[in-house]
Amino acid sequence: MKKLIYPLLCLLMPAMAAVEKAPVKYTDAANLTIVNKAQPGGPAFQRIDVARYPELTPMVTKYYRYSTGLAVAFRTDSRSIRARWRTVNKLPGANTTLIAQRGLDLYIRRSGKWVFAGVGVPKNAGTEHEAIIVEHMDTTMKECLLYLPLYDEIAGLEIGTDESALLEAAPDPFRHRIVVIGSSITHGSSASRPGMTYTARLGRTLGFGFINLGASGQCKLDAFFARIAAETRADAFLFDVFSNPSPQQIGERLEPFVRRIRESHPTTPLIFIQTAVRESGNFDLRKRAFEADKRAIAREGMQKLLKTDPNIYFIEPGMDLGDDHEATVDGVHPTDLGFERMLNQLTPRIARILKKYGVE
Amino acid sequence: MKKLIYPLLCLLMPAMAAVEKAPVKYTDAANLTIVNKAQPGGPAFQRIDVARYPELTPMVTKYYRYSTGLAVAFRTDSRSIRARWRTVNKLPGANTTLIAQRGLDLYIRRSGKWVFAGVGVPKNAGTEHEAIIVEHMDTTMKECLLYLPLYDEIAGLEIGTDESALLEAAPDPFRHRIVVIGSSITHGSSASRPGMTYTARLGRTLGFGFINLGASGQCKLDAFFARIAAETRADAFLFDVFSNPSPQQIGERLEPFVRRIRESHPTTPLIFIQTAVRESGNFDLRKRAFEADKRAIAREGMQKLLKTDPNIYFIEPGMDLGDDHEATVDGVHPTDLGFERMLNQLTPRIARILKKYGVE
Repeated sequence: MKKLIYPLLCLLMPAMAAVEKAPVKYTDAANLTIVNKAQPGGPAFQRIDVARYPELTPMVTKYYRYSTGLAVAFRTDSRSIRARWRTVNKLPGANTTLIAQRGLDLYIRRSGKWVFAGVGVPKNAGTEHEAIIVEHMDTTMKECLLYLPLYDEIAGLEIGTDESALLEAAPDPFRHRIVVIGSSITHGSSASRPGMTYTARLGRTLGFGFINLGASGQCKLDAFFARIAAETRADAFLFDVFSNPSPQQIGERLEPFVRRIRESHPTTPLIFIQTAVRESGNFDLRKRAFEADKRAIAREGMQKLLKTDPNIYFIEPGMDLGDDHEATVDGVHPTDLGFERMLNQLTPRIARILKKYGVE
Repeated sequence: MKKLIYPLLCLLMPAMAAVEKAPVKYTDAANLTIVNKAQPGGPAFQRIDVARYPELTPMVTKYYRYSTGLAVAFRTDSRSIRARWRTVNKLPGANTTLIAQRGLDLYIRRSGKWVFAGVGVPKNAGTEHEAIIVEHMDTTMKECLLYLPLYDEIAGLEIGTDESALLEAAPDPFRHRIVVIGSSITHGSSASRPGMTYTARLGRTLGFGFINLGASGQCKLDAFFARIAAETRADAFLFDVFSNPSPQQIGERLEPFVRRIRESHPTTPLIFIQTAVRESGNFDLRKRAFEADKRAIAREGMQKLLKTDPNIYFIEPGMDLGDDHEATVDGVHPTDLGFERMLNQLTPRIARILKKYGVE
């Protein structure tokens, strides 16, 4: 039998066993770099300062308090990375994991690429969480990106490192700002963990800042979403705005939605993505017809806009989930498999459009 | 603007609105066909009768009471399919959805292929659930397969149909019996819903019965797993038995495990799949070494067995998750994306082996 690496490693690295019991130092993540916030200011772990938008519906206000899409950027040479955090909601949703809802998701840059390092697993009851995210690492300095929960508000977050280790804020690793306004599919239902939303994956793949303003079930081309877009600095906008509204709402609201944004962003590229063909319509004839109507009216509306504005784009299919009907958790929400299939089509198309505007 | 299909459909199908309020008839699923049970007898929704195996550890006893891998086969011409069911566990796990843990997952055969139709969404608190799985269907007779929860025990399950509709047991749609003994990866962590485990997907793709005896974290080549295999009728066995044991346990237990099974199944194909290269070892040097040792010892043990037994197979890599480190929920458990990548490699290899034995 060949010599085993594991006992050898234990012999060679006697410090490791000691490290586990070594004292841990906690740092308030609010003092580090929080990336992907929509606008400056507001509570540290909130993606946009909802106090600025009193006209939001209660649900959107609640959702925009979530830490969706945000990540903490820091550097450390600690052998282990831990976290203590407090969330607000008590009951889990049915179609995402607790890790996605209220957990943490750590990536470390290796040879220029973001590599998954570990998750902070939340408790399944209560709102106080504590977890070892990764341990037994070497002590080279590492650039870290800790994605925050997709479906919960963060009342506090501390990052734990070995007491002797260095921990410091890192610069935002992403260039440019792509603001994404959308439905639950953008919000991240049903990514398996916070780093697996399609916006987070686009961010890591392209190296751009993707600001996630997805709001599950709420994104119906309302005027307040247009106001938020108008008041948010962006190199481009990505819109998943045909998933939640009714066909009638699309018909009535699309044109004024675009007009309001164009008042503040006259030539910024506005990239609309067609909504998915829902698997919930595989046998439900009513849902199938309703969804087909939505897509038809979205397509008509976009064709009009494309004729008048050279900086508007429509990607259809925008969310191609393949043809085996296996890429959603519940007939509506793509899983990581669904997002992968979407991105295989979407990433090169978005990259090509952005490149025309120097976003590369 | 083009004519809309949805209002048209509502006009043409006035019966639909009435149907929703139509009385529902409930049928005890225990009286229908339950497929993929390991052995005859025992409680209806339990994958194996644990009373026959008093030597199981408490955890394996608990897990084998779960309905993992089972499905109810029935035919109906009902426009809607509902369910009422009772589960036993109260707290959710962190790395799977509630739909996977205690929800239901319906497929309907269309043009010879199983197509996802809808999920039974469980409540997020409590153990009594009731859901509409799919509605507004046409009234052609349909062959249905309702997958049961992966991580819970079913204390009762009734299927609801329109009162005037027919509901009857369907024959088991799967031929042959492939018995799969394994870890959490086999058990189905972290499939998004019950029909998305790799065993369920193999079953639908190949048309064979795959019996799921995965037991999260427990599958350490113990003698009782060998006894279960020995006493279970099978055309082939698939073993994911290198994920849970330590390198030492693999070294000590593999050969007697196979010997015990061979006493009852002298020439049945035994297909071993190598465990995944875990993403939890991306930066954790200890886990990386431990896992490398496991794989090395498994490989050595298998090489010995392959020399002496022509009906033993070893597939390596057995769980190829790609090279982007994005296919797990937590560094250990494949998501639907991970299972898809595994199956891309695994399905043709398993099919080729089975074909040699007339299993096709």
